Amino acid sequence: MINKCLILAAGRGRRLSSLGEPKPLVRLLGLTLIERVILTLRRCGIEEFYVVTGYKGKEVRDFLDKLSIQKGIRIVHVINEEWEKENGLSVLKAKGKIKGKFLLCMCDHIFQESMVKKVMEYEPADEEICLCVDFRLNNPVIPDTNEATKVLVEDGRIKDIGKKLKKYNGYDTGLFLVSQKIFSAIEESIRRNNDSSLSGAIRILAKEGLVRAIDAGKDAFWIDIDDEKAYKRAEKELLNMFSQKDTDGPVSRYLNRYFSAKITKYLINTNITPNEISLFSFLMCIIASLAFLLGKYSYLLFGGILAQISSIIDGCDGEIARLKFQSSKFGAWLDAILDRYSDAFLLFGLTVYAYNPLKPLLTLSIGFLAIIGSFVNSYMADKYDQYMRREFQKLKKHKPIRIGRDIRVMLIFLGALMNQVFFTLVLIAFIMNLENIRRIIILYRNQEILD
Amino acid sequence: MINKCLILAAGRGRRLSSLGEPKPLVRLLGLTLIERVILTLRRCGIEEFYVVTGYKGKEVRDFLDKLSIQKGIRIVHVINEEWEKENGLSVLKAKGKIKGKFLLCMCDHIFQESMVKKVMEYEPADEEICLCVDFRLNNPVIPDTNEATKVLVEDGRIKDIGKKLKKYNGYDTGLFLVSQKIFSAIEESIRRNNDSSLSGAIRILAKEGLVRAIDAGKDAFWIDIDDEKAYKRAEKELLNMFSQKDTDGPVSRYLNRYFSAKITKYLINTNITPNEISLFSFLMCIIASLAFLLGKYSYLLFGGILAQISSIIDGCDGEIARLKFQSSKFGAWLDAILDRYSDAFLLFGLTVYAYNPLKPLLTLSIGFLAIIGSFVNSYMADKYDQYMRREFQKLKKHKPIRIGRDIRVMLIFLGALMNQVFFTLVLIAFIMNLENIRRIIILYRNQEILD
Repeated sequence: MINKCLILAAGRGRRLSSLGEPKPLVRLLGLTLIERVILTLRRCGIEEFYVVTGYKGKEVRDFLDKLSIQKGIRIVHVINEEWEKENGLSVLKAKGKIKGKFLLCMCDHIFQESMVKKVMEYEPADEEICLCVDFRLNNPVIPDTNEATKVLVEDGRIKDIGKKLKKYNGYDTGLFLVSQKIFSAIEESIRRNNDSSLSGAIRILAKEGLVRAIDAGKDAFWIDIDDEKAYKRAEKELLNMFSQKDTDGPVSRYLNRYFSAKITKYLINTNITPNEISLFSFLMCIIASLAFLLGKYSYLLFGGILAQISSIIDGCDGEIARLKFQSSKFGAWLDAILDRYSDAFLLFGLTVYAYNPLKPLLTLSIGFLAIIGSFVNSYMADKYDQYMRREFQKLKKHKPIRIGRDIRVMLIFLGALMNQVFFTLVLIAFIMNLENIRRIIILYRNQEILD
Repeated sequence: MINKCLILAAGRGRRLSSLGEPKPLVRLLGLTLIERVILTLRRCGIEEFYVVTGYKGKEVRDFLDKLSIQKGIRIVHVINEEWEKENGLSVLKAKGKIKGKFLLCMCDHIFQESMVKKVMEYEPADEEICLCVDFRLNNPVIPDTNEATKVLVEDGRIKDIGKKLKKYNGYDTGLFLVSQKIFSAIEESIRRNNDSSLSGAIRILAKEGLVRAIDAGKDAFWIDIDDEKAYKRAEKELLNMFSQKDTDGPVSRYLNRYFSAKITKYLINTNITPNEISLFSFLMCIIASLAFLLGKYSYLLFGGILAQISSIIDGCDGEIARLKFQSSKFGAWLDAILDRYSDAFLLFGLTVYAYNPLKPLLTLSIGFLAIIGSFVNSYMADKYDQYMRREFQKLKKHKPIRIGRDIRVMLIFLGALMNQVFFTLVLIAFIMNLENIRRIIILYRNQEILD
């Protein structure tokens, strides 16, 4: 198993200097570029990181030393004083330090875990080298095709590589799986062509048929953060990617996530943790439900708005956790527990608001049914989501609608807005309990999917 | 991997005839003896069953054919007309039919899955044979040591075997893992000693050092159902074994299980399914909560008793499912969902009963807190149980007390009995919510155990 990676982080990145220098330490959504690359690779199984530093190298190394201690990651420094020359020299500095086969990537390329895993799955022969190639020639992450490194792939092997290729069918994603052969190839490229670029070495190996192309895939996301435009694009794409969840209901997907992504973009640059956001969202719901208890329309309206905002903020904890690699089982669990308490308090507040002394049993029963229906709806969500995942795989595009918390809170908000509290409780009681019965029937018919 | 088993079911079993004939079809806790052996082995990974039938063979084969179709099990018939002779002949009839290595056992021996798995883990050499041995010489399942087959084991190998051994250190459990060698050994035993018993063949192999002893383990349960006394003992032990759950709370463990085992013993001989029992228990709770709504002490008392009985019966579904190999993920899930609805209805009934128009908000809030506390208590039980399992493994004997549904329903019962409904709700609200907070703190401190 490949468990080592060489990361090139020696260059200056002048075109990105408006956002800060050195480039590896430019912050994007709460993490430096190099940190995001390292944490992405760690999740793919990489355990040892060799980082080549050059421009403002001490600053970068100090940062990496802190990261190493804080997160328990093995990071080996490789120093390249010739960082102003071509990047093949950076690779060459690692010769003798890094053994066997290893991943090779750039500190300013962001890529999805799935791409890395694809590359790591491949077992190259001792002499071989693999390059992850993007075959989507119109991929919008490559706005300037003049600047991109192009490749010509035939029968799964790279025939030629370079920025100036006339005939090409893919782009170099900057993600390699290499053997020790890479060092001699760079040396040969320098000797023979006076070319110390990594591409020069790959070109030599390609001529010998030693470079395999691995398809990044049709849905793969990667981007070379070369300038401010690419930086903005990366920010947007990452926010989009990490703010979606398969199990999102329609209100989350089409409304809440739009706002929560904006809040996340702001909060992610602070030190606020996902668990603190969960707690904050919970407290907002408690205040909202206390407002309901006061029994006046103005307070009701205030509480309803607060509840809806809380529901939006409740999406941020997960987004930030995923974007900053801070996800934890405990965090997800705590969030779910607090959501249950929040739901119950909101519905209890509404029940007291709607209480009619002339019809005590009716009004209390409806509130009670709304509470229990909502509870059980969440209680059965785990198993139902298993079913949903399978359905989604079958149907591909049409995600089945999921009735859950997002819809519940939206109904509470609308009910408060229109001062129709009793009607809202009736609606929630009906929708939730009917949905629960529907789920029991669905799972009864699909028992085999329960794991 | 071993995936075949030869089951000897040809004998008459005269000593058990008071309970019915033929022996393989004697029913024990809802299943025939042969059915229980087959279903136990199937759960251990056995896929092909070769069953030797003799006495009333057609009856047994008809039963097995039905079982085969109903449960989708491959069963091959082996007929032994000489069933009145020694049991080695039964084995010999399978020669040429069953290939490779296979398990060999008796239709009237009941054993725990863990024993079978231990035997199947062992990889014998081609010539070797393994016998699962019980080294507990005072094992109470062997009341008549004269009748038991004894073994002398030295250095993990069986030296001698027989009913009349003077020097021995273990008992033959009747569970073997054998190779084709067993057939030639039986033939040799007949030729040389005119002994057609299985023990005779094992004795010959043992002399050559070819029989390994596999320790059944200190906690293993197995029993040879030879007479009515052993039958009663097996019934008692199985009920005990299958009526306990690691996650049982104290009321379940020390009270409810005592009664539910008795009800299970009765219900298991009917066609009532575990899911039907879950539904029945749920309906009892609904009736109990409706009784609470009526607001009179007599109805309250009736409802409280009904709730407690329902809680006891709620244990039977799982017991029957386990004893009859009918456990399903859906069944366990449905049971949990119905329990949540039951709890909520009971507590809502009590809340309405305790409602005081002079202190409306107080009485409603307490009822609400009891409902939400109970619900979240169950909602977090999964993760908490992970923690409990680890703790239990560390502490071995002292199972930590688990506060859950059994305690809740018992409090409801006692509260109804003493007509102290408001106080009961206060108690449940406090205990459940405090327990929830305690669990959050515990899991926060033990995050690493969450899977």
